[in-house]
Amino acid sequence: MSEETSPWETLGDLILQQNTVAATDFINTLSPSETARTISRLSARQQQMLLSILGPEAAADIIEDIPEVQAADLVEDMPSAEAAAIMEALASDHQADVLAEMDDGASLAILAEMDHEEAEEARKLLAYAPDCAGGIMISEFLFYNMEYTIQDVLEDLQANRGAYADYLVQYFYVVDNFHKLAGVLRMHDLLFPAREKKLSEIMIPSPLSVSDGSSLRELEDFFEEHHLLGVPVVDARQRLVGVVLPSAVEEAVNKRKTKSFLRISGIVGGDEFRTMPLYLRSGRRLSWLSMNIVLNIIAASVIAMYQDTLAAAITLAVFLPMVSDMSGCSGNQAAAVSMRELSLGLVRPGELLWVLAKEAKVGVINGTVLGLLLGSVAFLWKGNAWLGIVVGGALAANTIVSVSMGGMLPLALKQLKLDPALVSSPLLTTVTDMCGFFFVLSFASAVLPKISGL
Amino acid sequence: MSEETSPWETLGDLILQQNTVAATDFINTLSPSETARTISRLSARQQQMLLSILGPEAAADIIEDIPEVQAADLVEDMPSAEAAAIMEALASDHQADVLAEMDDGASLAILAEMDHEEAEEARKLLAYAPDCAGGIMISEFLFYNMEYTIQDVLEDLQANRGAYADYLVQYFYVVDNFHKLAGVLRMHDLLFPAREKKLSEIMIPSPLSVSDGSSLRELEDFFEEHHLLGVPVVDARQRLVGVVLPSAVEEAVNKRKTKSFLRISGIVGGDEFRTMPLYLRSGRRLSWLSMNIVLNIIAASVIAMYQDTLAAAITLAVFLPMVSDMSGCSGNQAAAVSMRELSLGLVRPGELLWVLAKEAKVGVINGTVLGLLLGSVAFLWKGNAWLGIVVGGALAANTIVSVSMGGMLPLALKQLKLDPALVSSPLLTTVTDMCGFFFVLSFASAVLPKISGL
Repeated sequence: MSEETSPWETLGDLILQQNTVAATDFINTLSPSETARTISRLSARQQQMLLSILGPEAAADIIEDIPEVQAADLVEDMPSAEAAAIMEALASDHQADVLAEMDDGASLAILAEMDHEEAEEARKLLAYAPDCAGGIMISEFLFYNMEYTIQDVLEDLQANRGAYADYLVQYFYVVDNFHKLAGVLRMHDLLFPAREKKLSEIMIPSPLSVSDGSSLRELEDFFEEHHLLGVPVVDARQRLVGVVLPSAVEEAVNKRKTKSFLRISGIVGGDEFRTMPLYLRSGRRLSWLSMNIVLNIIAASVIAMYQDTLAAAITLAVFLPMVSDMSGCSGNQAAAVSMRELSLGLVRPGELLWVLAKEAKVGVINGTVLGLLLGSVAFLWKGNAWLGIVVGGALAANTIVSVSMGGMLPLALKQLKLDPALVSSPLLTTVTDMCGFFFVLSFASAVLPKISGL
Repeated sequence: MSEETSPWETLGDLILQQNTVAATDFINTLSPSETARTISRLSARQQQMLLSILGPEAAADIIEDIPEVQAADLVEDMPSAEAAAIMEALASDHQADVLAEMDDGASLAILAEMDHEEAEEARKLLAYAPDCAGGIMISEFLFYNMEYTIQDVLEDLQANRGAYADYLVQYFYVVDNFHKLAGVLRMHDLLFPAREKKLSEIMIPSPLSVSDGSSLRELEDFFEEHHLLGVPVVDARQRLVGVVLPSAVEEAVNKRKTKSFLRISGIVGGDEFRTMPLYLRSGRRLSWLSMNIVLNIIAASVIAMYQDTLAAAITLAVFLPMVSDMSGCSGNQAAAVSMRELSLGLVRPGELLWVLAKEAKVGVINGTVLGLLLGSVAFLWKGNAWLGIVVGGALAANTIVSVSMGGMLPLALKQLKLDPALVSSPLLTTVTDMCGFFFVLSFASAVLPKISGL
C-alpha cells in the first residue's frame, strides 16, 4: 500500500487542479463501495471542493454511494443553493434519507432553496418515520387517471421515455379524480386491447395496497405473501402517495439490523465511522462506558461485602471473573436467540413463560455440565473437594439464572417499549455478575472452615 | 393468553379432524409471520400431518413462510414422493435454499423423486455457493431467441399468461442459438415497433450482466450503480443461466448479518430456534461455552500467579472484574465499528495501521477519562491515593490496549480468512482479561508497601 498511490491521493490531486473531467472519469472507474471508501478518506475541504467542481448531477451520484450520515454531514456544510441543487438530483427516497440525517436548521435552509414542488414532495416523505411504508416509498412510479385511454398512456410513455428510465414501470396505477387508488395495470396489459379503450375498462380494480403507516414487519409479510415487484401506498383517505419496492423493505430491515448490532456493541449514538471527528467518536463511546462503569461498581460491591471470606480463601479470586464471564456468555446466547425470534415474529413479547420453560431446561443441562467442568478444574488444582463444590455449584446455579434471564429479558424489554439491543446486554451482565459473585462467595462462606487458607 | 385458544391449538384440532378445507381457510387468515409462529408450535407429528392433508401446493405456501432450517427438517422427514411434490411447487430460489439445508441423503432422495427437468434445475442451483449470484438467482424470467418476432413473443405471453404470473416480466432477455445472452428488451419496447420485427433488430445489444460467481459485495455494488429491477446472470461461456433481483441481494445480506449476529453471541452452529430438540440446542451452545471455559482459565491464571499480591491487598479483588469488563466493552465497541466498516467496504483488511492510528487516539482519550473516574472511586472509597493510581492506571493502560486491538482484530482475522464474527469476541475478551489482570496486579506489586492491608 505504501508503494502505490491510493485512490484518494489521486483524486485529491485532481481536486487541487480543479480538473473536473479527469475527476469525473476517475470516479467512474470506481465501484460504489470503492467510491465510498475513497471519498471518506478525503479531508472535509477536499470533499466540499469535489462536490462543487463536479456539479449537482455527478455530486448526487457520489452522495448515493456514501453512507447517509456522511452524506448529510457533507451536504449540510455546503452553501444552501449548491446543496439544494444536489438534493434535487437525488432519487426521492435518498433525498428524504439524507435530509433526515441533517440538523433541522440545515435541512430547512436547503428545502427553502429547492424547487418548490420537489421540496413539497421531500417534506411529505420527511414527515414519515423511517421505519414505515411512507418512509421507504419511492415517488418514481407511473400513474394515470382512469379516464385516460391506452393511446393516451402510450403517448405519455413515448414522450417521457428519458424521464421514466429510472421508474418502476412493471405496474402502473390508475387513480380517480380525487387521486384515490382505483386500479392497477401491468405493462403487458397494454399490449392486447384496442387503443381507444379507457383504463377504467381494462384495469384490475381494487388492487392490493398498503397504508402509509405500515410497519416493516407488515411489509415483509406482504411481500412474503404476494410475489410482487412493488406495492402502492395509500394515505388515510385512500389517495395514492407512493410505491414500496421489496428491495427497499429488505434494505430498511438491513439498516435496522446494523443499528441493533452497533447498539448491542455499545455504539449508542447509532452510527460511527472512523472518518468522523475524534471528539465525537470518543464522546459517544464514553457515554455508554460511563453508564457501564456505574453498573460495574454495583456488581463489584458484592465482592466488597464478602471481603473477609475472600481474604480467608484467596484462591476464590481466580474463579470470580470466570464464573461471571461464563454466565455472561450463556446469558448472551439465550438473549440472541430471543432477539432473533422476536424479529422473525416467532415469539411474542408476552410469552415469557413459554421462553422460560424452554430456556430453564437448557440452563439446567448446560449449568450442570459447565459446573462439573469448572468444579473438577478447581478440585484438581487445589486438591480440595469443597472448593470444587463451591465453584462448580456457583457456576451451575448462575448459569441457570443467566440463561433463564437472558431468554426472557429481550421480551420483557420489548413489552416495556425499551430497545432490547441497547438495554439487554448491560443489564444482563450486571445481574449475572452480581449473582455470580454472590453464589461463589456465599457458598464459600457457608463452608469457610473447609476451604480457608487456600 | 391462557384464556384464548392459541392459533396452534385451533389448527391442531383441525389437523386431528383431518379437516383440509377448514385448515386451509384458517391458515389463509394468518399473516406469513403468524403462520411461521403457529407452525413452529405444532408437534413434529402435527406438522407432518398438516402438510399431508393440505396437498403439495398449499404445503409449499407454508414452507415458504417458515425459516429454511425448519422447512428442511420438516420436509426431509416426509416420504420422498410427497416431499418431492412439495418441492416442485416451490419457487426455484426457495427450492434450492431448502434443499441446501437438508442432509445430503435426504436431498438426493427427494431430487430423485422430482420431475426430471425440475430436479436438473435444482441441482444446478444447489451447486452454487449460497452467497453468490448463482446461489440467489431465480429461474422465473422470460427469454426468447433473437430470431423471434415481436408477434411470436406476444403470442407466447398471451398463451402463458397464467404461468408467467410470478415471473419478472419487466425485462426479457434475448439469446442466440447457443443460449448466449445477446440482448435485453423492456416490456414497453414491444409497444411501438411493427409486430413483424425480429427481436435482434430492436433489442439493446450486449446488456449488463453479472457472472454466476459474483459475490454479494459485487452484486450490491451493481445495484447501487444501476437502478435496475433485475440483472441477467451468465456462466463462464456467457450463457444465460438466471436473473438476480435486487431484493434477493438484500435478503442474502440480511441472512448473513443474522448469522453473524448469532455467531457473535455464541450460537456457533448457525441457526437456533426454540422449537428445535433440547439436546441439540444445549449441545450447540455448550460447544462454544466449553471453548470459552478454556480461554477463561488461561486468563484467570494471571490472577493465580499474583495470588500473594492479591492476598496482601484484598481490595484489589473488587477491581479486577471491573477493569477487565470495562476494557472488554471498550474493545467490543472498536471491533463493532471495524466489522461494520469492513462489511461496507470502507476499510480493507490490509489497513491495520490506518485503523490503529484512528483507534489509539480514542483509546488514549477514553482510557484517561475512565481511568480518572475509576481511580477516583478507588481513592475516595479507601482514602488511599496509591490504590487510585494502580486501579486508574491499569484501566487506562488496558483501555488503550483493548481499543487498539479491538479495532485491528476483525481486519487481521479477515486477512487470515477467519470469520471475525465468530473469533473476534472470545479472543478479544481473553486478551483484555489477561492484560487487565496483569496491569492491576503488576502495578500493585510495584507499590505493594503503599497499599498492603487494604
